[in-house]
Amino acid sequence: MIQFHERPRLPRGFRCAARNCGLKESAPDLAVFYSEVPARAAAVFTRNKFPGAPIIVGREIIQKRTLRAIVANSRISNVATGEEGIRNVRRMGEAAARALGVPADEVLVSSTGVIGRQLPIEKIEAGLEGIAAHLQDDPLVAAEAIMTTDTHPKALSLSVGTAVLTVVAKGSGMIAPNMATMLAYIFTDVELEAHALDRALRNAVDESFNMLSVDTDTSTSDTCAILANGLAGPVPEPDFRAALLAACTRMAEILARDGEGATKLLKATVTGARTRDEARTIARSIVNSPLVKTMAYGADPNIGRILMAVGKCVDCQVVPERIALRIGGELVFANGRKTNYDEDRVRALLGGDPVTIAVDLGVGTAEATAYGCDLTHGYIDENAAYYST
Amino acid sequence: MIQFHERPRLPRGFRCAARNCGLKESAPDLAVFYSEVPARAAAVFTRNKFPGAPIIVGREIIQKRTLRAIVANSRISNVATGEEGIRNVRRMGEAAARALGVPADEVLVSSTGVIGRQLPIEKIEAGLEGIAAHLQDDPLVAAEAIMTTDTHPKALSLSVGTAVLTVVAKGSGMIAPNMATMLAYIFTDVELEAHALDRALRNAVDESFNMLSVDTDTSTSDTCAILANGLAGPVPEPDFRAALLAACTRMAEILARDGEGATKLLKATVTGARTRDEARTIARSIVNSPLVKTMAYGADPNIGRILMAVGKCVDCQVVPERIALRIGGELVFANGRKTNYDEDRVRALLGGDPVTIAVDLGVGTAEATAYGCDLTHGYIDENAAYYST
Repeated sequence: MIQFHERPRLPRGFRCAARNCGLKESAPDLAVFYSEVPARAAAVFTRNKFPGAPIIVGREIIQKRTLRAIVANSRISNVATGEEGIRNVRRMGEAAARALGVPADEVLVSSTGVIGRQLPIEKIEAGLEGIAAHLQDDPLVAAEAIMTTDTHPKALSLSVGTAVLTVVAKGSGMIAPNMATMLAYIFTDVELEAHALDRALRNAVDESFNMLSVDTDTSTSDTCAILANGLAGPVPEPDFRAALLAACTRMAEILARDGEGATKLLKATVTGARTRDEARTIARSIVNSPLVKTMAYGADPNIGRILMAVGKCVDCQVVPERIALRIGGELVFANGRKTNYDEDRVRALLGGDPVTIAVDLGVGTAEATAYGCDLTHGYIDENAAYYST
Repeated sequence: MIQFHERPRLPRGFRCAARNCGLKESAPDLAVFYSEVPARAAAVFTRNKFPGAPIIVGREIIQKRTLRAIVANSRISNVATGEEGIRNVRRMGEAAARALGVPADEVLVSSTGVIGRQLPIEKIEAGLEGIAAHLQDDPLVAAEAIMTTDTHPKALSLSVGTAVLTVVAKGSGMIAPNMATMLAYIFTDVELEAHALDRALRNAVDESFNMLSVDTDTSTSDTCAILANGLAGPVPEPDFRAALLAACTRMAEILARDGEGATKLLKATVTGARTRDEARTIARSIVNSPLVKTMAYGADPNIGRILMAVGKCVDCQVVPERIALRIGGELVFANGRKTNYDEDRVRALLGGDPVTIAVDLGVGTAEATAYGCDLTHGYIDENAAYYST
């Protein structure tokens, strides 16, 4: 029923374009997404109390539940920029609206990059002039323009019934619940009522991007928006919800694996928890633990670190004697002590990608999965001098 | 009133000894602390739900509120070791009691090091035989024997009135609230009633070690115990409490600065918060943020990361327009936007040690300080292969 495509493409009626407008030296740094017809829209934004100017304006724009376009730049995030920052968001949205011939109150604006600098708004306005002539179908073109420390552009698409669903995203640092993705745009030609779209988005984000953490740091710019233009007609709602969750989960894994400096995906599944919240807390604690993350990097079977990460969730029901811990399917701890596992085998499993950690708490029936990555020299390199470079 | 000593020494009536018993190759790995007379005692232990065997037994032992000795080994933590682990704690306490001629139920046992291995208890028992002959006054001798990834032994002492107060500690990784210190032992010759001692300890730990975080990971072995043998007579209780807090705070700073791979102390003070809990949450969020920690390492004034770390405390009252942010005393953000600060000066301040970050939230009168360190290549090196080496 759900069929991932080998190469991502935008659903019918959606197109995108990218350009360099001078924020980066020569790489594309400005992208637009365009819907030929008004699309029903929903969005979720960062809960960080220092939201960027685009978030403040975006929360207004999404009230209309209709979008015709998204415009996004990389390199500067337009956060902590005061009233001037807000004015620049509006100018950027208006410039995109003019260039694409759509209403300005149906354009969502995003910015990602360094905090605390004003946008060179004239450069962006100049960059948007005439951009409609470059609209095309490959989402990777726009995905490239919104990259910051990402090592590759990120887009995927799938078919569900007669409809197509495409996710374009960026993000590799300052990523943690809630929300994980710095920017994720979802386009579909399904026909769906606005409230159903909103519910489906919140459900999918909660299980995917909100369970993703590269470094526990929550961006001030996180945005996930979905646009549904209806051109493919309706799809049964359960099918659509399943497809949306599958797409977001796969994108969360892609983002985690490309976490800053990361060499592998870290996936922690907690079962047998007393409540879903406790399962989520413990799964996140595992993928967030620097000691677990460095262990995954070093492929060193120091399983005590995983037990520590479970046990430090002091408000959850954790009974050491009931816990079964598996690494890559191999049982390494049960009945309150380490099993006689083959250390070389576990070392090999930790050396692979993904590293899967499964904890059965044995105290209930709730479960959750969290997505993270290893912690490496690359993370330090990228973040000890991000601003200056 | 409080006078830190230039070189630490044990208070009268306390002595210590250390030995190599074969856990480490040749460095000391086994320590005892001894009180000539029964000492009033109090202790706080890790809240991790996977407590080590010494913690389980230690919670029993401390019920008597009297200690004559502490015995501790490094290299193996005796965590996740089941019933055999518990038996080994008792054997270790009994061996120390025999060697020192004190009751076994007045000996606190600690182990620190790798998780999930059984102690070679015969080696430890053999190491304790005859150790009384080596008792002496220098706390650094025992401090060295309980080191794991610490780069230097940690002890400090001060005088308060007629009494002396000495803190011996170890810990540089898997350190976070609650508790921060993996092992901290406090010795004093003050005369104080047991409940007052307990209250003073909990108060001091709450403001110092519990506000210390190297890597957000909470050890399964954290222990902080205080022994007061009364030989110096009484000291006014407020003076003693102030002295204990000063000693624990200084030791928290020492531990933070020696965090795994750390090159500097990171100190975050939050003022003007709505509640003390919110001040503590935000102060910890700052010192725990990998992006703030790598910024301190790289001395790169990317102040947006600090705002992000404040803003991600989504359940606290944070109003961007009211916030004043200072780095090393220099105002860098106020009235909702960056100030026109001198970037070179802030870069220089971030290059120093300690790096002090002060956030005035402007919404109340509560405050808190948290202690952390930068995140460096050294942390990755130490933790990608801790177990095997």
